[in-house]
Amino acid sequence: MALGIADMAVFCKKKGFVYPNSEIYGGISGFWDYGHLGSELKNNLKQMWWKFHVHSREDIVGIDGSIITHPKVWVASGHVESFVDILLECTKCRERYRGDQLVEDVLKISADGMKADDINKLVRENKIHCRKCGSALGEASPFNLMFSTEIGASGGLKSYLRPETAQLIFTNFKLVEEHARMKLPFGIAQMGKAFRNEISPRDFLFRCREFEQMEIEYFIHPNQTGKCPFLNEVEDMEVNIFSAEMQENNKPHSPMKLKDAVKKKIIQTPWHAYFLGLEISWFTSLGVNQQHLRARQHLRTEKSHYALDTWDLEYKFPFGWKELLGMANRTDYDLKAHSEHSKKDLSIFDEESKQKVIPHVVCEPSLGVDRAFLVFLFDAYNNDEARGNIVLKLHPKIAPIKVGVFPLVNKLDGEARKAFESLKRNFYCFYDRSGSIGRRYARADEIGIPYCVTIDFETLKDNSVTIRDRDTTEQVRVKIDGLPSFIEGLINGKPFGR
Amino acid sequence: MALGIADMAVFCKKKGFVYPNSEIYGGISGFWDYGHLGSELKNNLKQMWWKFHVHSREDIVGIDGSIITHPKVWVASGHVESFVDILLECTKCRERYRGDQLVEDVLKISADGMKADDINKLVRENKIHCRKCGSALGEASPFNLMFSTEIGASGGLKSYLRPETAQLIFTNFKLVEEHARMKLPFGIAQMGKAFRNEISPRDFLFRCREFEQMEIEYFIHPNQTGKCPFLNEVEDMEVNIFSAEMQENNKPHSPMKLKDAVKKKIIQTPWHAYFLGLEISWFTSLGVNQQHLRARQHLRTEKSHYALDTWDLEYKFPFGWKELLGMANRTDYDLKAHSEHSKKDLSIFDEESKQKVIPHVVCEPSLGVDRAFLVFLFDAYNNDEARGNIVLKLHPKIAPIKVGVFPLVNKLDGEARKAFESLKRNFYCFYDRSGSIGRRYARADEIGIPYCVTIDFETLKDNSVTIRDRDTTEQVRVKIDGLPSFIEGLINGKPFGR
Repeated sequence: MALGIADMAVFCKKKGFVYPNSEIYGGISGFWDYGHLGSELKNNLKQMWWKFHVHSREDIVGIDGSIITHPKVWVASGHVESFVDILLECTKCRERYRGDQLVEDVLKISADGMKADDINKLVRENKIHCRKCGSALGEASPFNLMFSTEIGASGGLKSYLRPETAQLIFTNFKLVEEHARMKLPFGIAQMGKAFRNEISPRDFLFRCREFEQMEIEYFIHPNQTGKCPFLNEVEDMEVNIFSAEMQENNKPHSPMKLKDAVKKKIIQTPWHAYFLGLEISWFTSLGVNQQHLRARQHLRTEKSHYALDTWDLEYKFPFGWKELLGMANRTDYDLKAHSEHSKKDLSIFDEESKQKVIPHVVCEPSLGVDRAFLVFLFDAYNNDEARGNIVLKLHPKIAPIKVGVFPLVNKLDGEARKAFESLKRNFYCFYDRSGSIGRRYARADEIGIPYCVTIDFETLKDNSVTIRDRDTTEQVRVKIDGLPSFIEGLINGKPFGR
Repeated sequence: MALGIADMAVFCKKKGFVYPNSEIYGGISGFWDYGHLGSELKNNLKQMWWKFHVHSREDIVGIDGSIITHPKVWVASGHVESFVDILLECTKCRERYRGDQLVEDVLKISADGMKADDINKLVRENKIHCRKCGSALGEASPFNLMFSTEIGASGGLKSYLRPETAQLIFTNFKLVEEHARMKLPFGIAQMGKAFRNEISPRDFLFRCREFEQMEIEYFIHPNQTGKCPFLNEVEDMEVNIFSAEMQENNKPHSPMKLKDAVKKKIIQTPWHAYFLGLEISWFTSLGVNQQHLRARQHLRTEKSHYALDTWDLEYKFPFGWKELLGMANRTDYDLKAHSEHSKKDLSIFDEESKQKVIPHVVCEPSLGVDRAFLVFLFDAYNNDEARGNIVLKLHPKIAPIKVGVFPLVNKLDGEARKAFESLKRNFYCFYDRSGSIGRRYARADEIGIPYCVTIDFETLKDNSVTIRDRDTTEQVRVKIDGLPSFIEGLINGKPFGR
């Protein structure tokens, strides 16, 4: 993959996918705005995620919680006390570094989860200085990543913008369980913004201060940990597995059937295997190459304060394999913490075992929307030298614009607009009459329009139009009357041609 | 309408539409979480809005900007200086009031837009005291409604959560115009959260501190103000008009064709008439009774600092006619302000007039999602005494769940699940085998499921099922094979029956 992350940012700006926020004021690090194509792509992938994870299942329902919430939520969850990164500041130029990142960049070791003391020690021992001006760095100190704000007039209540969507699921857990009449095992899904005051946002959309999550908290009876009724749906999938042991022994990741990974106890619970398979199949169902994905187990040192076993789904970005999705086994940590802090009983009655239980979150497939957005773009991006233009091979279901409609010459405008109007009722379409047909095809390729419809002089005789497939440039003639259903079929996976 | 706003909040909680945020911690005023049905209804109405306003038109494209943005944006827009409400605080019990609201509540006059001095005068003259403890109120003072936060480590940049989505459209205006190749007149749409630190949030979802907007900024060449090419699409609509003059003369609103309102110069520009008609038709196309909507012109005293002429679309809530949607004529106020503050040229080249111009925002249909959510619920809510249950007559396109599938008896589970699986691929469905069929119908009615499918013993013989229409309770038999396309037809407006 020759395209770097900075090149992708340039491409995204040029084509109207993503702009630096407040660019006219010089921008502001870690904040991005989605443009006319980016907002469509983002909406589409969120809708496809929701359809796949909520609408097509019976065991998962959704919620949509607020961003600002009672500060006690973040005390109970542990974020007020321990959601910190280690901050290093240059004593001279005041440049700020995230301690673990600086240590990783300079020493090429993994420093994830290191405490301030360890970072200080490494900085001293290795004489790490400010990378900008070369001066000494100050003492490392923890820095809380939550954005705070005040609710009400001055002297009001200090609260926080949620740093993760998950806690809203826990605070609403009992209400949802009761009103949606859920039975264990079940999940609650949510999509929405979250905020982290990153010390050094970087890599374009990969590490932003404002971002969006799509996630599920999946609750089971504690005695169901060893048995996942859905595993059979994915157990024969061959997945790139990168276990803690492989990492410790410097071995590369290796393809393995999910059922074997469970049998060999590499993946500790069948639930993790199931959700890894499910999430990978979501990406591949929308066109991502499975070889660009792998499942990596967290090392003991990097696990979150609440997690028993955690697997990340990683994607092969140009800047290395990076986390897309974290799947912690949070056990009953959160529900218990909220139960204690709120003095409310958050246990539920389980019909199966006839017991009151605090369910365990066995798995938490929590995916960054902006990272998924990047994945789909990187996987779709092709510099087609034969055509002399970029071809963005986005899956038709997530492509921002589904159909381009072109009159061969301006004289055919009336006829072309009729076809356009009939399509527009069903799909987001784009009408283009500027430049040669070749130029219009190229323009459509670059923004990932999967199907282009050209109205030519033949159309006047036979009421047919030419449809061109973006990925193969193959063309077929189709009657105008059948156009919307023909396109509908293509989007839903019918092979091109007749 | 007997149902009050507090009753609606109770109904919404009981059925899983909306919960008080952080309820286990006692809640937090002005913040709400959408439950398993509310999140679906909200998503559906947002999607329908986007389809109607963006996908089905050529002159409007969308963006999705960030919530936190550069503070200079809010200096340029005037929000830092003048986005204030007047705060009154009890000198004894410290209870806080929004000055204009308190004056309105006590004196039954309109106090919208009043300054601190005027409020002080009214409080003194009318001896208004704290409504809670009866003590004296302190001096009225302006209170900025923006939530502030700090970006970066301590001593970082003070910024704000956006109090309106509009400014993100202005800051990205040039980029969008260029990359989406827009020609005047054109619009830019956006949906997303906004935040206002309301002094006294009230009326459930009506006035929240965290809320969501769906809006369009519509740009025209300044010399196009008098001519809207789309007016003919809506000009014959008869709309309840409540002009400034009618209000000043204590006249009631009165139905009037939009073209007449323009001709008589009651509505100053044809653009306002067009967008009023467009927005009303959006609501009515999704089932809202047009008699519950009216167009009210702002009085001179209540116009925003930037607006030339403003019309609100109002809905008849149980607590009175209230604003749903504000449509200001913002002229070139915002683009000019950003141009001056950023020192960037935000003018564009207009092909038609061959001039460089700073376009005018002639209209800004800016709709609160949460208010629209309330409108659809109030308009759909029916207490059906004959049936003995509530029937939520939500339009099928926005109903959270489209189909309920019921086996008559548990023995028919296998057959029923087959029908369920075939439907689930296309629609969000609900499988229910608990209680009598009557009980299941009632349960479906109450959460607005438009179609219920019952599998009975006849099904085993004739491969048909019974579909029941929520609003009429009419029933028809349909072959299982044709079920998904039959339901699809109903959702898209085919009449019930055969």
